[in-house]
Amino acid sequence: MTHTREILEAAPSVPGFDVEDLATAIDACTDASVACTACADADLAEDDVASLRVCIELDADCADICSATARVLSRRARYDVLLVQRLLQACVRACASCAEECERHAEHHRHCALCGEACRTCQRTCEKLLQAEAFEQVQALAGG
Amino acid sequence: MTHTREILEAAPSVPGFDVEDLATAIDACTDASVACTACADADLAEDDVASLRVCIELDADCADICSATARVLSRRARYDVLLVQRLLQACVRACASCAEECERHAEHHRHCALCGEACRTCQRTCEKLLQAEAFEQVQALAGG
Amino acid sequence: MTHTREILEAAPSVPGFDVEDLATAIDACTDASVACTACADADLAEDDVASLRVCIELDADCADICSATARVLSRRARYDVLLVQRLLQACVRACASCAEECERHAEHHRHCALCGEACRTCQRTCEKLLQAEAFEQVQALAGG
Amino acid sequence: MTHTREILEAAPSVPGFDVEDLATAIDACTDASVACTACADADLAEDDVASLRVCIELDADCADICSATARVLSRRARYDVLLVQRLLQACVRACASCAEECERHAEHHRHCALCGEACRTCQRTCEKLLQAEAFEQVQALAGG
Repeated sequence: MTHTREILEAAPSVPGFDVEDLATAIDACTDASVACTACADADLAEDDVASLRVCIELDADCADICSATARVLSRRARYDVLLVQRLLQACVRACASCAEECERHAEHHRHCALCGEACRTCQRTCEKLLQAEAFEQVQALAGG
Repeated sequence: MTHTREILEAAPSVPGFDVEDLATAIDACTDASVACTACADADLAEDDVASLRVCIELDADCADICSATARVLSRRARYDVLLVQRLLQACVRACASCAEECERHAEHHRHCALCGEACRTCQRTCEKLLQAEAFEQVQALAGG
Repeated sequence: MTHTREILEAAPSVPGFDVEDLATAIDACTDASVACTACADADLAEDDVASLRVCIELDADCADICSATARVLSRRARYDVLLVQRLLQACVRACASCAEECERHAEHHRHCALCGEACRTCQRTCEKLLQAEAFEQVQALAGG
Repeated sequence: MTHTREILEAAPSVPGFDVEDLATAIDACTDASVACTACADADLAEDDVASLRVCIELDADCADICSATARVLSRRARYDVLLVQRLLQACVRACASCAEECERHAEHHRHCALCGEACRTCQRTCEKLLQAEAFEQVQALAGG
């Protein structure tokens, strides 16, 4: 159990997002970031490391983007909705891309199967956040 | 002088981007990240800290996004062009948003003036990267 | 539930540490990092922000050190025991220092109470890792 | 040219360290962090990737620790001298360890030679900071 939701609720001002969705996405981002870092490390220890290069690189990119997203969401995404929207879109893409690659090795490497799972969960929680009302106005303003 | 450009050129495979543009953007991202962190710290030590809350928050978000962008670009942005495009778009927004806020305090706080400068430079270098040919195909595929 | 322990166990080579202790420390580091980031954000929204400056700064330092520690531990701390020992010592100090400050405000600000809790848990899990056999040889070599 | 020194000087309160030493160390940390990330990426693209595993892992650890150190120093290391001391000691070790490994491959891989250089510079600037007067009292208190 993390302290994420409770601490978000204890802040004096409310965020523009559902607190449960926000806490779920933050925890999914940190889980995916750890999973990607551990998966890259495990890939490097495999005999077939040469065939896992793309996996290691996408793991590393995904870990960095998930970590940054967890940070920005932990500040309750209050100050610049467009910034949050674009970061979530990058995070969704990083997770989908990393999961797709990991899923290719899932039968041979259990760490890839687990990392793929963590990335898909993170992808879904970020996609859910992107459906928040807070973003509708942004799309309207952008003439979408 | 940083080692950024030389080390990018020493890698066995070439990136999909102009090496000089890539190195310039990486160095601008790390400079903006340090500037934002130092500006937030300086804001906190000012007498009018209560009026600098938004500046501190945008500084923190911008520092995190610039750091992640520097990391991904240092891997020469080779594996997933769409991921890089979205991250650069998030970074451009974070820098523009932070610079705009810092520029409001630029006359009263020199650290805000300097941070605004660093963010504007980072914004421009990311915008330049976004004009690379590598991204044109992405936009075509997306039906843009 | 995170994927941390399962993914550490799925790696081809075993770490020099008890996997459960390692996974517990990683999850405590990411929880403390999020808690510190969210606590600093909540502090900034409080009316008495000027009296919470030290708390905000220690939160920020602690978040950065916990994030780096989670990363290094996720690589299963295999390659340089002395590096891991020093980083854990820095993380223990960052958590103790941040917790001590947060505990001063715990009665007035629930987010500080929760952040203090997360930091104390992280401190304890890092202290436990520091008692691992892997570190005894290091201390012997250092003439301790 | 970075904005680091100027922005540190623009803050309302002075740090406990020589501003030039502090700015030099921050810029060396960010340079080493980028160099390590780019070196790991280049290692992964080499034909002999299997023999570069340790280099890739130490690069990754060093990048994370240098990034965290740059962040904490950018807050001018004001609030907890012992925390800063321990983090600098971890950073010195990470840089020395990574440089030593990179130097082994320096003749075959120019990116390793360059990364070794960046890490040695970072190591030296952190060692210089550790000699600051601010740390003497800490050692005295610790009975050193």
